[in-house]
Amino acid sequence: MVDYNPKEWFRFIFYFHKADTVRKLMPWLLSIGAYSTILAFLIIEYWKIGEDADVRNISLMHSLLGFVISMLLVFRTNTAYDRWWEGRKLWGSLVNNSRNLALKIDSLVPVEDHQSRAFFKAMIPNFAYALKNHLRKSHKPNELTDLEEFPISELQQNEHIPLQYATAIFARVLALQKKGILFPEHLLLLNTELDSFMNICGACERIKNTPIPFSYSSFLKKFIFVYCITLPIGYIFSLHYLVIPFVVFVFYILGSLEVIAEEIEDPFGKDANDLPTDSICNTIRTSVGQVFN
Amino acid sequence: MVDYNPKEWFRFIFYFHKADTVRKLMPWLLSIGAYSTILAFLIIEYWKIGEDADVRNISLMHSLLGFVISMLLVFRTNTAYDRWWEGRKLWGSLVNNSRNLALKIDSLVPVEDHQSRAFFKAMIPNFAYALKNHLRKSHKPNELTDLEEFPISELQQNEHIPLQYATAIFARVLALQKKGILFPEHLLLLNTELDSFMNICGACERIKNTPIPFSYSSFLKKFIFVYCITLPIGYIFSLHYLVIPFVVFVFYILGSLEVIAEEIEDPFGKDANDLPTDSICNTIRTSVGQVFN
Amino acid sequence: MVDYNPKEWFRFIFYFHKADTVRKLMPWLLSIGAYSTILAFLIIEYWKIGEDADVRNISLMHSLLGFVISMLLVFRTNTAYDRWWEGRKLWGSLVNNSRNLALKIDSLVPVEDHQSRAFFKAMIPNFAYALKNHLRKSHKPNELTDLEEFPISELQQNEHIPLQYATAIFARVLALQKKGILFPEHLLLLNTELDSFMNICGACERIKNTPIPFSYSSFLKKFIFVYCITLPIGYIFSLHYLVIPFVVFVFYILGSLEVIAEEIEDPFGKDANDLPTDSICNTIRTSVGQVFN
Amino acid sequence: MVDYNPKEWFRFIFYFHKADTVRKLMPWLLSIGAYSTILAFLIIEYWKIGEDADVRNISLMHSLLGFVISMLLVFRTNTAYDRWWEGRKLWGSLVNNSRNLALKIDSLVPVEDHQSRAFFKAMIPNFAYALKNHLRKSHKPNELTDLEEFPISELQQNEHIPLQYATAIFARVLALQKKGILFPEHLLLLNTELDSFMNICGACERIKNTPIPFSYSSFLKKFIFVYCITLPIGYIFSLHYLVIPFVVFVFYILGSLEVIAEEIEDPFGKDANDLPTDSICNTIRTSVGQVFN
Amino acid sequence: MVDYNPKEWFRFIFYFHKADTVRKLMPWLLSIGAYSTILAFLIIEYWKIGEDADVRNISLMHSLLGFVISMLLVFRTNTAYDRWWEGRKLWGSLVNNSRNLALKIDSLVPVEDHQSRAFFKAMIPNFAYALKNHLRKSHKPNELTDLEEFPISELQQNEHIPLQYATAIFARVLALQKKGILFPEHLLLLNTELDSFMNICGACERIKNTPIPFSYSSFLKKFIFVYCITLPIGYIFSLHYLVIPFVVFVFYILGSLEVIAEEIEDPFGKDANDLPTDSICNTIRTSVGQVFN
Repeated sequence: MVDYNPKEWFRFIFYFHKADTVRKLMPWLLSIGAYSTILAFLIIEYWKIGEDADVRNISLMHSLLGFVISMLLVFRTNTAYDRWWEGRKLWGSLVNNSRNLALKIDSLVPVEDHQSRAFFKAMIPNFAYALKNHLRKSHKPNELTDLEEFPISELQQNEHIPLQYATAIFARVLALQKKGILFPEHLLLLNTELDSFMNICGACERIKNTPIPFSYSSFLKKFIFVYCITLPIGYIFSLHYLVIPFVVFVFYILGSLEVIAEEIEDPFGKDANDLPTDSICNTIRTSVGQVFN
Repeated sequence: MVDYNPKEWFRFIFYFHKADTVRKLMPWLLSIGAYSTILAFLIIEYWKIGEDADVRNISLMHSLLGFVISMLLVFRTNTAYDRWWEGRKLWGSLVNNSRNLALKIDSLVPVEDHQSRAFFKAMIPNFAYALKNHLRKSHKPNELTDLEEFPISELQQNEHIPLQYATAIFARVLALQKKGILFPEHLLLLNTELDSFMNICGACERIKNTPIPFSYSSFLKKFIFVYCITLPIGYIFSLHYLVIPFVVFVFYILGSLEVIAEEIEDPFGKDANDLPTDSICNTIRTSVGQVFN
Repeated sequence: MVDYNPKEWFRFIFYFHKADTVRKLMPWLLSIGAYSTILAFLIIEYWKIGEDADVRNISLMHSLLGFVISMLLVFRTNTAYDRWWEGRKLWGSLVNNSRNLALKIDSLVPVEDHQSRAFFKAMIPNFAYALKNHLRKSHKPNELTDLEEFPISELQQNEHIPLQYATAIFARVLALQKKGILFPEHLLLLNTELDSFMNICGACERIKNTPIPFSYSSFLKKFIFVYCITLPIGYIFSLHYLVIPFVVFVFYILGSLEVIAEEIEDPFGKDANDLPTDSICNTIRTSVGQVFN
Repeated sequence: MVDYNPKEWFRFIFYFHKADTVRKLMPWLLSIGAYSTILAFLIIEYWKIGEDADVRNISLMHSLLGFVISMLLVFRTNTAYDRWWEGRKLWGSLVNNSRNLALKIDSLVPVEDHQSRAFFKAMIPNFAYALKNHLRKSHKPNELTDLEEFPISELQQNEHIPLQYATAIFARVLALQKKGILFPEHLLLLNTELDSFMNICGACERIKNTPIPFSYSSFLKKFIFVYCITLPIGYIFSLHYLVIPFVVFVFYILGSLEVIAEEIEDPFGKDANDLPTDSICNTIRTSVGQVFN
Repeated sequence: MVDYNPKEWFRFIFYFHKADTVRKLMPWLLSIGAYSTILAFLIIEYWKIGEDADVRNISLMHSLLGFVISMLLVFRTNTAYDRWWEGRKLWGSLVNNSRNLALKIDSLVPVEDHQSRAFFKAMIPNFAYALKNHLRKSHKPNELTDLEEFPISELQQNEHIPLQYATAIFARVLALQKKGILFPEHLLLLNTELDSFMNICGACERIKNTPIPFSYSSFLKKFIFVYCITLPIGYIFSLHYLVIPFVVFVFYILGSLEVIAEEIEDPFGKDANDLPTDSICNTIRTSVGQVFN
């Protein structure tokens, strides 16, 4: 994630970050600019189509459908933003549950039981790191804290890694009950937090693996394409060569909305618009460490 | 579900998948095209209605109501999308609860109790498969794992199959308590997951069995029909024969929104836009298997 | 509820069901048609107001406010739809909780305790039927299963009937604990389901008894009225007698949105647009019956 | 709250209830009417500004911003409605929790313990009445049921009254446990309901005490004011004296939306649009009374 | 937070509070005014571009995109408002949980145990104050109540302060169980409230630390800038020097929406639009004090 101050207007207006939609759309903007130039040249200089041609009124279509396309794209971006924000909530909830689990374990497990305390101190952040990498389809053993009781080398790398961590944490809690360190009611106190790990994991997988319905996505792209391809035809008679920046700018606006939506609807990667999952993992490790010290 | 990369613009624009609304709407697009052609011919060549006829101003209606129809259809699609996404959340939640139930049972039931472990290892995924087929009004015994204690042959096929699985799972948990393997607090630990099965099933049935209110659906279709049927009349005087592609394209946009809404509001089938319930069932079986091994 | 297939376009376009807004609005459509006819006759034939009259520009108001009225009505319908859908969710949740309660009781109460099993088998569906009729302000004893331990004849008909059923169910559960059949933890297992009955009842009552705020409803109706009453004045000069179908159709659209909203915001009756509460009650009785057999 | 039938169109259109926005906005409508009249007189008769003056095109601004102002006001009203509806849900939830608490206590406390039963029978409705009056910043001892064990005279009137009732109810439940009448699991059964009282109270206080952000409210009012003040200037040249009803009606629409929003966003008073908290309190007292009899 | 009465229209329209967007946007309004003046002078007096220039039709772009920009900005403001309101809900929930925890502890801990009661009486409000300051990245020991058992001087100021308070509160509850003052079921009664502290803290941190996605924010600012910079060009031919107030006002509207959004999306500071966290902390201290007296 790019860390930025939303109040710095100047920087936003004149600086083109590599995640800026202007740069992402550049090839398209150039193509549509070239297309408009050629079309304008042909109509004005070559075919010399007059102002009374019916084709001029094709701009009626752009007015009539201007509202639908705007609304569809604004809703599209908002739906994508909702997923992004849901992703952020899930990771925020992972922070909360990790902290709550840590502070409960800290009080419940006696100070002398160094081994158990070390176990949770290592495993709670490990789950977060494992989840982060699982969502990026990678496995980074060096980010995990190794433990004698649950060595990284024994992880089944082809299987679901966060699931293995969650299983190990639950098993340890039960083992503490069997030893009489945790009482029955303590188990119930920990249940919400223990449940939350796989719930968060599953919800992130859902966001990651479910793009918007195929027909909808396909329809939107076809609509934008036809709308912009016919745009110069209708406006060339009133704008002449000015139609070129006009079409490029309109396409920039509509295309940006679609591109932003595509960027933010899968928020677990490493792009400028993705969630700061790396730093959230660090927060979890720091907080859990503070609680146990 | 079609698996696709939302960033492949070219493919989306020029490829017409069989789930594409262009193909679904083809007969309608052809009819409305023919209707516009005949109307244009009659008005221009035969009746020779002049530009000063009042009928030309009927396009005022299309401007005035253009906003309402756009907004209704965009909201319609969004409501349908919300159902689709709710369906996805429910199945995501089934994954989470299946995994949590599995990892809890794995720790709670001693390794020696092979029979109980095999029971849950088979029955948790069985519930998912049974639900998937129940929502498709089919019964596929070959997708279910057979168990001596709960043989597929004893399923009441005319009754609610997922309910029979959920009942059997709960009964088994209680039986384990009676044998003293599970303690009272363990029952409470498992309660959320056990409750979730029938809650998810009921919510999916709700989405599947409840189309939008009859009057609303009927009103929308009448509105689209009258709007498009009168569309060429108003625009024929400014566009002449260009009115034909104009009307066809406008109908394509409005019709697509309605067709997409109809496609995605019942997301449990096997269409290109439906949820990947088959692969979610496989995920559940794989995850549960991994936990118990 | 009318059961229908949303994909049958032909039927929707050409068939006017008695719940169709066309039929509901018929008297209004005829009145506004007559009004427009008279006005058109007076302006065109009698007063002979020319095209340069200021009054013609009153249509500027209709453009300027066209967006507000559209948006208000679309939001109005969506709010009503949200209530309708919330009502559906509540009844879906009643199905879920009835099934979960039944399957838990089935495992918890020994097979020999015929009386208790018969009690729950009868009372869980009875609650649903009682709630359905309570929301329709009726009392239909013949839909309820009579029980020796809780005879219909002893119901206080002037008091809150669903509350009496919920009280009896809870009392029975506690009685089973006192007899030692249910253990403390079993009580907690059943708590969610037992709580849900009155929560669902109260939420349905809330939807039923709370129309949208008085000022809002009054304002909307006045707005639609003035908007449509002045509509012919502005458009008569460009459309002449064509203004009559124009005004009738615009009123049909705006009025339908308000009428649909009024229909669906109280979804517990017996109209074509109401929720299928009767068949949901049957589902509950069938499911509960299947569990106990 | 005014109790009304939303289907009585005639009454709504021609009857001006004292809560009607027409009456609330009357002074403003008259002022803006007078302002428009004077302006029209000056421009038409005195200054004789011609149709070719630039000032006429100021109406371009009203078209360009017409959409923003409409959308802002419609969203404003919807946000206010959401608060109103959330308030309604909270009071509905108070009904549900009061009934559930009553029916649980009814089964849990033996019939012989008249004093305890009388305590809850009085105190549960007392909480609702106290909350209702607390939200109206009043204290009405005559609405409360007096109890020997918790006499109204001992209430700290300058402190938080609902909090005192909630504290007393919880203390009583604990006292019943100490006496051995309630068992540990019964305490857990009652926890949701006991928690809900102060949660509902706090949520109502939140709605009541938090108007929309200052800058937003200030901005909206300035926008409406400038928009309407400049409205006659732009339209006077096409409408002449007809601009007067035109401006008054547009202001009526925009002003009503803001006024309705202000009315309904604090829904706990005694106005025509406020929630029926008085009758909800009665419902609670009646229901609780029925359960204990 | 500024405390205000939303019904005082006069004050809102004519009074420019220092948080008013007019004052915040002043430098921008002056710049864009100067820019428009220079441009108008150049076009009208110097370059003398005629009315038939193509450049005049650039206003077509402003119509076509007027809807997108309006909708984007209105949605932007609404998203920011949703965060602001979520922040308010979280602090409201902190009030509720603090009160519920206090009233439960008050009944559970015997009157004689002065030390424990003093502990909770001090620590519950301390958490709220610590959270408030934590969100403002400050530390104000003088707002905290000092306790012998948890002296402010022993706080790790560089670590997470609210986490230290939440840990201490949970530890104390467990210690009371070990002493036999609290029973197992009492621990479960307190669990929701104890969990809530860090959940609220984490959710506030999430709102504070997550601005809207970078690309989206950057895109919006570029869009507003280009839209307003080109605005005078299109309208200068119909409005001449009147284009100056026109452009300034349009920019005021669009800019205000963005500025309001930026103001309210981080609601935990001390600005006029921020939440009244200081007074909420006082409410918590007062309520908790009342319960324990």
